[in-house]
Amino acid sequence: MSPTPRLPAATGNLLYAQSGGVTAVINATAAGVIEAARARGVKVYAARNGILGALREQLIDTSKESKASITALRHTPGGAFGSCRYKLKSLEESHAEYARLIEVFRAHDIRWFLYNGGNDSADTALKISQLGKAMGYDIRCVGVPKTVDNDLAVTDCCPGFGSVAKYTAISTLEASLDVASMAETSTKVFILEVMGRHAGWIAAAAGLAGDSADAAPHIILFPEVTFDEAAFLARVKATVERVGWCTVVASEGTRNAAGQFLAEAGTRDAFGHAQLGGVAPVLAALVKERLGYKYHWALPDYLQRSARHAASQVDAEQAYAVGEAAVEYALAGMNAVMPVIVRTSDAPYRWKVEPAALAKIANREKKMPKNFISRDGYAITAAARRYLAPLIHGQAPLPYGNNGLPRYVQLRNVALAPKLAEFPPRH
Amino acid sequence: MSPTPRLPAATGNLLYAQSGGVTAVINATAAGVIEAARARGVKVYAARNGILGALREQLIDTSKESKASITALRHTPGGAFGSCRYKLKSLEESHAEYARLIEVFRAHDIRWFLYNGGNDSADTALKISQLGKAMGYDIRCVGVPKTVDNDLAVTDCCPGFGSVAKYTAISTLEASLDVASMAETSTKVFILEVMGRHAGWIAAAAGLAGDSADAAPHIILFPEVTFDEAAFLARVKATVERVGWCTVVASEGTRNAAGQFLAEAGTRDAFGHAQLGGVAPVLAALVKERLGYKYHWALPDYLQRSARHAASQVDAEQAYAVGEAAVEYALAGMNAVMPVIVRTSDAPYRWKVEPAALAKIANREKKMPKNFISRDGYAITAAARRYLAPLIHGQAPLPYGNNGLPRYVQLRNVALAPKLAEFPPRH
Repeated sequence: MSPTPRLPAATGNLLYAQSGGVTAVINATAAGVIEAARARGVKVYAARNGILGALREQLIDTSKESKASITALRHTPGGAFGSCRYKLKSLEESHAEYARLIEVFRAHDIRWFLYNGGNDSADTALKISQLGKAMGYDIRCVGVPKTVDNDLAVTDCCPGFGSVAKYTAISTLEASLDVASMAETSTKVFILEVMGRHAGWIAAAAGLAGDSADAAPHIILFPEVTFDEAAFLARVKATVERVGWCTVVASEGTRNAAGQFLAEAGTRDAFGHAQLGGVAPVLAALVKERLGYKYHWALPDYLQRSARHAASQVDAEQAYAVGEAAVEYALAGMNAVMPVIVRTSDAPYRWKVEPAALAKIANREKKMPKNFISRDGYAITAAARRYLAPLIHGQAPLPYGNNGLPRYVQLRNVALAPKLAEFPPRH
Repeated sequence: MSPTPRLPAATGNLLYAQSGGVTAVINATAAGVIEAARARGVKVYAARNGILGALREQLIDTSKESKASITALRHTPGGAFGSCRYKLKSLEESHAEYARLIEVFRAHDIRWFLYNGGNDSADTALKISQLGKAMGYDIRCVGVPKTVDNDLAVTDCCPGFGSVAKYTAISTLEASLDVASMAETSTKVFILEVMGRHAGWIAAAAGLAGDSADAAPHIILFPEVTFDEAAFLARVKATVERVGWCTVVASEGTRNAAGQFLAEAGTRDAFGHAQLGGVAPVLAALVKERLGYKYHWALPDYLQRSARHAASQVDAEQAYAVGEAAVEYALAGMNAVMPVIVRTSDAPYRWKVEPAALAKIANREKKMPKNFISRDGYAITAAARRYLAPLIHGQAPLPYGNNGLPRYVQLRNVALAPKLAEFPPRH
């Protein structure tokens, strides 16, 4: 981590909020934040349900949680304080909301705000820091990276992604062993649908399951590559004829030439509505109808991003490290920055955390490099493997109870007494 | 294990075949069989793709596999020699097939046949032993239990079930932590669809995820309980209003009052066909349409039964033990038996393996006891918890490679030279 200027010990409280879709390791970041702040004698408040809790003055006093509970956050999936999908707009459009945040900060002497999320959250943190200045309130805003989509700019990877990548690679490997066993008389085509509406990072990770000519997955469908029905079916057929079976991993964001999501192009639900969130059944129906093969399909949905039991050790460590670094940056007086992961070596994998300007991250989206997808559009390249492989390294430690289940913690989440009048946000 | 009569050391070879849907631990049974036989100097052949390989004289010589490979079978999911869905009918209807099996056994001096499967396989093993006698060929048939459906008679539980139970309980717990985080502004209802067309054992196991009043899963839908749309919707609504969100675990075999599978009652695919394997999207559409809640749904399909990475230690040990015992019974001259799990204590959990007559197992189906489902039909009872809890105990050991993935073995599967003319089975 690069040296940051040390300011004289500041006073005040730190507010931490989780934003957007949660991950298997976002609470490891919370643990990093709280443990680093406690070590420096700074009290951490957490916003209940993300930025909404800050707007509503629903704040949680994390000093009421035991040391053991905070340590257990390191291995507990989901968002321990609640998250939300709520985007603040421009300073002009959402001025009242930004001003309310400053008011809440002032009421609770919040001098540091750590916002744990993706592109939108980086943007919000940036705007809050600007408005604080305009309103004469000294607030340091630090963004903390989090997203299974791995689409944040600047950082080499995003905490949360490595674990969903590992879950996806393991699941692809295991389900393919199953399909291979059954193919002689039963299932010949297995389709696994994974998250990724705009970028194929998670689907790409499935490619780590195998690296030989006929190893699964045999076909990966990326949002970056236009779906060609005839070419897809020809490839499925050729694979079944050569290998005996075929595993397909499809991004939920797979689109046809007209730009439509496949998931919305076909299936109707019981009410005749276009059914969402199901590219796998659409592909399965296609395979059955055109090729006559028996199929199975899986759609793990939230299971993939909450699977702490299969989390990557690298990912869990990075998630914790960005939390720690965010506190360090904030207390050192840095503003409008985000701790990002910098890769210094592929093999052996080495990484460090450095501050980057939020202005370079906010509202940008990192696409998967073109050279990560094979020329035929159905596989990952050696360059992609070099990038992806280290991110699923190691099994993140996880204590189990005598009941055979992971010991996940439920915090007490003790509320701070509100000091202000109610404020009705849009929700 | 009860003492069995020891016969003088017999000569000949042992044939092992896997049948029906595979599991996370069926190969642990194969490892038990092969290691026990090797220890007694008996050669094990494996039928390629189950009984089909025996009919086609496609036999694998497992003596060509290294000790390390056989040990690795203990932690490798899927069926290492291939399985099949192929039911032999009555001795009259399928006489040519039964006779062919005896012919193949005779050609390769197979004196012990171990058939690893469910109810159908028990029936086939029983018939083969009868025909061997009629044809003057001395063959000992032993059934070996396997099924994620947990529906075999006599045995307390079925190898394969404990691991899918554990996967399901963990996944329910993890996904519910995710939903709880998102419920304020986004997903309020999460639906997890699990296997179980005729019996709700796997859905019941989800109930182990929580045991307090408002813990997930809030609603379990069993095939044993007729789906009542109005009551279901009322329960979802009440749960969301009280808890803030709701996790539903639905058996694929959930049926309406007309006896139709919900999965077939509504959704049409792109070609207008009834879509199979999706009760979750049907329920999700219902929740959206009638209650207006945002939803997510997951359908892990093969992921649940191949998830060796989340396997139960008890299950893996039992799977190995029934393989070992089957060899012991066969070599001791027992015929038409199956090693079954006998529970001798709930807490602490104790079990042993004993032989049971195939005649008492073949073609029967163990239903879930009525007192395992709560009176309202949506939860499991204390009796169910006592039965289920020990089956997910412990994490089955699993070596990981430097690539972050489990080290699953791929056998060489060296074929024996055929000695007979080809025989065309129905497939």
